Amino acid sequence: MYKLLVLPAALLGVFASAHADEGQWQPHQLPQLKSELKRIGIAIPAEKLADLSKHPMSAIVSLDGCSASFVSPEGLVVTNHHCAYGAIQRNSTAEKNYISNGFLAKTRAEELPAGPNSLVYVTDKVENVTERVLKGLDKLTGRARHEAVQDSIKKLIAECESDKIYRCSVPAFHRGAEYYRIRQMMIRDVRLVYAPSDKIGNYGGDIDNYEWPRHTGDYSFLRAYVGKDGRPADPSPDNVPYKSKDFLVVSAEGLKNGDPILLAGYPGRTSRYKLPSEIRYARDLSYPAMVAEYQADLDTIAAATKGNEANVVRYASVAKSINNRMKKTQGLLDGFARKDIAAIKDVQDAEFRGWYNKQPNVSKTMLSELDAVIAADMALNDEEFAWGMATNSDLLKSARTLYRLALERQKPNEQRKAGYQDRDLSFIKARLTRLEQSLALPVDQARFAGGLQRYAKLAAKYHPQGLDALLPAVDAVPALYQNSKLGDTAQRLALLDKDAAAFTASSDAFVQLVVKLHGIDESLENRRKEVDGNLERIIPQYMGAVIAWKKSQGKPVYPDANSTLRVTYGTVSPYSPRDGVSKGPFTTVEGIVEKHTGKEPFIAPQNLIDAVKAKRYGQFKDPILGTVPVNFLTSADTTGGNSGSAVMNKNGELIGLNFDSTYESITKDWYFDRGITRAIHLDARYMLWVMKEVDHADNLLKEMTIKYPKH
Amino acid sequence: MYKLLVLPAALLGVFASAHADEGQWQPHQLPQLKSELKRIGIAIPAEKLADLSKHPMSAIVSLDGCSASFVSPEGLVVTNHHCAYGAIQRNSTAEKNYISNGFLAKTRAEELPAGPNSLVYVTDKVENVTERVLKGLDKLTGRARHEAVQDSIKKLIAECESDKIYRCSVPAFHRGAEYYRIRQMMIRDVRLVYAPSDKIGNYGGDIDNYEWPRHTGDYSFLRAYVGKDGRPADPSPDNVPYKSKDFLVVSAEGLKNGDPILLAGYPGRTSRYKLPSEIRYARDLSYPAMVAEYQADLDTIAAATKGNEANVVRYASVAKSINNRMKKTQGLLDGFARKDIAAIKDVQDAEFRGWYNKQPNVSKTMLSELDAVIAADMALNDEEFAWGMATNSDLLKSARTLYRLALERQKPNEQRKAGYQDRDLSFIKARLTRLEQSLALPVDQARFAGGLQRYAKLAAKYHPQGLDALLPAVDAVPALYQNSKLGDTAQRLALLDKDAAAFTASSDAFVQLVVKLHGIDESLENRRKEVDGNLERIIPQYMGAVIAWKKSQGKPVYPDANSTLRVTYGTVSPYSPRDGVSKGPFTTVEGIVEKHTGKEPFIAPQNLIDAVKAKRYGQFKDPILGTVPVNFLTSADTTGGNSGSAVMNKNGELIGLNFDSTYESITKDWYFDRGITRAIHLDARYMLWVMKEVDHADNLLKEMTIKYPKH
Repeated sequence: MYKLLVLPAALLGVFASAHADEGQWQPHQLPQLKSELKRIGIAIPAEKLADLSKHPMSAIVSLDGCSASFVSPEGLVVTNHHCAYGAIQRNSTAEKNYISNGFLAKTRAEELPAGPNSLVYVTDKVENVTERVLKGLDKLTGRARHEAVQDSIKKLIAECESDKIYRCSVPAFHRGAEYYRIRQMMIRDVRLVYAPSDKIGNYGGDIDNYEWPRHTGDYSFLRAYVGKDGRPADPSPDNVPYKSKDFLVVSAEGLKNGDPILLAGYPGRTSRYKLPSEIRYARDLSYPAMVAEYQADLDTIAAATKGNEANVVRYASVAKSINNRMKKTQGLLDGFARKDIAAIKDVQDAEFRGWYNKQPNVSKTMLSELDAVIAADMALNDEEFAWGMATNSDLLKSARTLYRLALERQKPNEQRKAGYQDRDLSFIKARLTRLEQSLALPVDQARFAGGLQRYAKLAAKYHPQGLDALLPAVDAVPALYQNSKLGDTAQRLALLDKDAAAFTASSDAFVQLVVKLHGIDESLENRRKEVDGNLERIIPQYMGAVIAWKKSQGKPVYPDANSTLRVTYGTVSPYSPRDGVSKGPFTTVEGIVEKHTGKEPFIAPQNLIDAVKAKRYGQFKDPILGTVPVNFLTSADTTGGNSGSAVMNKNGELIGLNFDSTYESITKDWYFDRGITRAIHLDARYMLWVMKEVDHADNLLKEMTIKYPKH
Repeated sequence: MYKLLVLPAALLGVFASAHADEGQWQPHQLPQLKSELKRIGIAIPAEKLADLSKHPMSAIVSLDGCSASFVSPEGLVVTNHHCAYGAIQRNSTAEKNYISNGFLAKTRAEELPAGPNSLVYVTDKVENVTERVLKGLDKLTGRARHEAVQDSIKKLIAECESDKIYRCSVPAFHRGAEYYRIRQMMIRDVRLVYAPSDKIGNYGGDIDNYEWPRHTGDYSFLRAYVGKDGRPADPSPDNVPYKSKDFLVVSAEGLKNGDPILLAGYPGRTSRYKLPSEIRYARDLSYPAMVAEYQADLDTIAAATKGNEANVVRYASVAKSINNRMKKTQGLLDGFARKDIAAIKDVQDAEFRGWYNKQPNVSKTMLSELDAVIAADMALNDEEFAWGMATNSDLLKSARTLYRLALERQKPNEQRKAGYQDRDLSFIKARLTRLEQSLALPVDQARFAGGLQRYAKLAAKYHPQGLDALLPAVDAVPALYQNSKLGDTAQRLALLDKDAAAFTASSDAFVQLVVKLHGIDESLENRRKEVDGNLERIIPQYMGAVIAWKKSQGKPVYPDANSTLRVTYGTVSPYSPRDGVSKGPFTTVEGIVEKHTGKEPFIAPQNLIDAVKAKRYGQFKDPILGTVPVNFLTSADTTGGNSGSAVMNKNGELIGLNFDSTYESITKDWYFDRGITRAIHLDARYMLWVMKEVDHADNLLKEMTIKYPKH
């Protein structure tokens, strides 16, 4: 029986010795990595690291998409500048431009509301619920299986969220081989405490994004507030700072080349265990199409906003986000071109299949079933991509969310689709409200029309069945915008409470369009459930076999990233991007002056330049470099979502913040190439130096526990 | 009396301890650098290094513009591929393309004539003749002084060349503070022995010129032949290989980071002791004008050769040479922009002037005289530049040389201008002949017309007086070419024997033009003599004071490069072009494969790629790098003319060839910035590896004495 090959979770990750640095480990796996941690020089006992209720993991938090950590007993949180950007932006005005001037609350009273999208999540409980999720699924396939899994998950979540201070989730690990229920306390009164000027926090801007040498002071401070009873509460002046059970000591002792680090945070998504066919699909079809689509959309935005400064600003963050995804996707393609990862995986896959076919008592059909399901997944993905292209309008997407909410509300809460339950309402409302910051109807209209034109040029096989007949002609798009009120925030929010009948009766052009498209939408979703159900059934079998195969080679196994809390470790180290050149591991404040051109994004503040030129390094001077380090590289295994992650020294003290990785590293999402994969961190010494010499944030320096070097 | 400050030559360069690596030392200065040589680990006694008749200096030769060295007792010479390029080119045909296929003579009989421009110079005697040159000049200034110096020099040369096997010169050192008479045996039967394909010898081409990482196998082999009596002779099948008294052992033992090297060769020209005003003139006026002129001329050549493949080839080396000068000049400008060398020199200059004005018994007018002469030099230089722009025609230049020769021939040989004496005739003839390889009349016509147009746009103050009236209108240029026969080599050479009257009577349009322009030409030349005479009088006083000032600080003094034999030393070392990035010190054969795109100039030979992929490193594998090194960086002080220089290890064994320096180093001609100045060398192990694994030059590997590593 092949199911024997699915390993119990407790056995995962016991044989890591051969692969230092690679691996985004679940905290509970760390005791099985003892010899590795010891080898690189980590002093904290692995058992302590594995315990979320103990220091240092108890100080690690999530910001939903970013990572962060407590650095005082008064709920002070440090994260990346780019993670707090929304909070800085929403408090900025032309008169008080905190983006370009920075912001510092000298007292608690001066701290500013970070806004409804700034939430602090404290993970306090992780349970293996694999058995409960998978129970009774043996006979099910496709959509039925998927829905059964979703039902189990919804029950597990509802049970966990009986106390409303918690937000729970049940993500799949190893693509469905395991499920863990994760309980997070959600703190919803979060305030902006301190952010340096973006001339520091975003020095180098998009030009330096994913690049080394790097000189970015990518940090900001928030504070978590709770009710007087110590429990999370709605924002209120009566709230008090959250008394974090633990917090990280900030070390100004620094690191040198070769020193070990620990990094804890919430990596988003990796694809380390994908099949060669999936890599080829990404490399040859899906990613090139995505890059082309990103570029086309960016071109449309640029053309549609041209000459209207207000709209340029309105779409700046949208464009920045598309640009970032495009650069990352292009980086993956460049990496695939540099190194034939598909060929490497071919070899591994052939070895695996050879091994598998020799095992006794395994399914003879599993591998062919797997290939068939993967093929179905890729084909459906093409149609979903085409659907996205044809519906590239924020008005359309808002109408779709609202109509879907009305439909789901017809069911009992617990039976509704995830994302449309009562627990999700405040988030939906926040999203629909926030849209006003980045919407201009002429631009949205141009994006929608552009998408429709590109969709029309796609090969017929990518067009979801029946969709073409329902889509508006490009000529008809202006009329849609003239006949819709969804551009108005109040009108959008007014639809939050309406029932489905109100939608079918509506005369709003986008509401009508969404009602018309709903059949296609539903059909795509049901096909997705069918494919996912099959993936969820077969992939765990495959992964179980892979894990057994790797175990037979003494190789480690960690699950792909899935936005859950992970720990990775590595060492401070340079890398060679090409023969004869070495990069890193440190940059220094002198490099900021070297890069300063006086033109965006290379404008350093004058007082910073003066401090550098006067060599006012204070206690933050590195004894080897002879100056203040700014950023450094380590071999730690990170990805998107790890932004703001605490970088800790061997004693668990904060010595930096993760904020990026090098361009050559981008392919690590698919394949961890130890020679060139490097994460880029902010050196805590630079942060402390700016706080002292440039921004005079003495109140915070006093609040934190800082360990200064003895030299 | 201020003349007390002019130091006797024997004292120059006695206090070098503070400035490792900087300095292009005259061999006789080396015994005064003993402690430095010892500190970096040179094992050869300094006294031996200073003796040109002893190994290793006796094996170092000049190729007139390049450096080289003997590597066998049979006159085998190794130099750069780009230094032997002319010899390879003249032997190549469409059928036997030695440029792209390489060339290897398996026997002496197969060796090919390298051509009249390939000469080997063996320096065998260097005498300080300062007293004889400067005697009786006390009262002279300007042109009279310059001509008196030139007369003394001509006498010294004639005396030295009484044995016709020698070529002698009396260059000025420290801009005229000292004069040395240098005697070189000139070997005029030189043959091409071996050159790798330009896919190796010029891998990376112009794109990699001045760049690191570098992967160029820039080496070739020539052989010096002499008459049976052992004395230089005209090329003849009866000649025999020159029995070089000494030769360099080639070491395959290699170097590692930090190891010392010695480098001996013929650096062309540096400007280390120029005034801040001269740097500003170069930076703000002269160099930008030169770059613009180079670019304009290149654009003209490109437009005029377009569509005519034969002309493209004809002007390829002209364009390459202009491009190289332009890249170097632009590199100087970039370097000046990066580092304010003028400001550094301002500080030094102010300190010097402060010191000088405090000295007893010094001339109170020297510094103001100096400033005035330098100003006059710069002003005249502007007019000379304008003259060059207005006379940008090879036909015009040829006519000018020929007419000048006729005029000079009216005087007794010893009174003729240097360059027009009997000793120079064969060189003039060779130049006039060689022109046919790189001349096409429509292109020359376009360059002349283009120059005239640019000249017309220059501010009036730059136009030499009277010139405008004598120049042809742009419209009249085509007629000049129709009415001249100088495009024909035989016609050019026929004018070699003609007297001045034949020129004034000639109906050839370019001869007529040159006769007409002669007055302006002569006037510019006389003004140049006046300025030079004054420079030659005042600069030695200034340099004497500078030397005394530097001596008071314990600082070293070496003369600016002047194409004479020099020795420099340094260590193998990487450098940081910018904060957070380190380059070098080695590249490896794997980097060749990494750069290989299959498109010029990145086409590596297939058998080389195969050897790398199969890791057939043989005895040439570096124990630390684990592969064969290709190029490496040292801190040695080099400049143009050092191409082909022997790079020797501490024992004086050849471990590499100098061939370039990094882009960031280009400003070293003005200011040696120890942090970033690096010379690029070919690693002898790569040369030997290609000879063995790729080109199978076993006969040469056998002929040379090679020291293999013991590991």
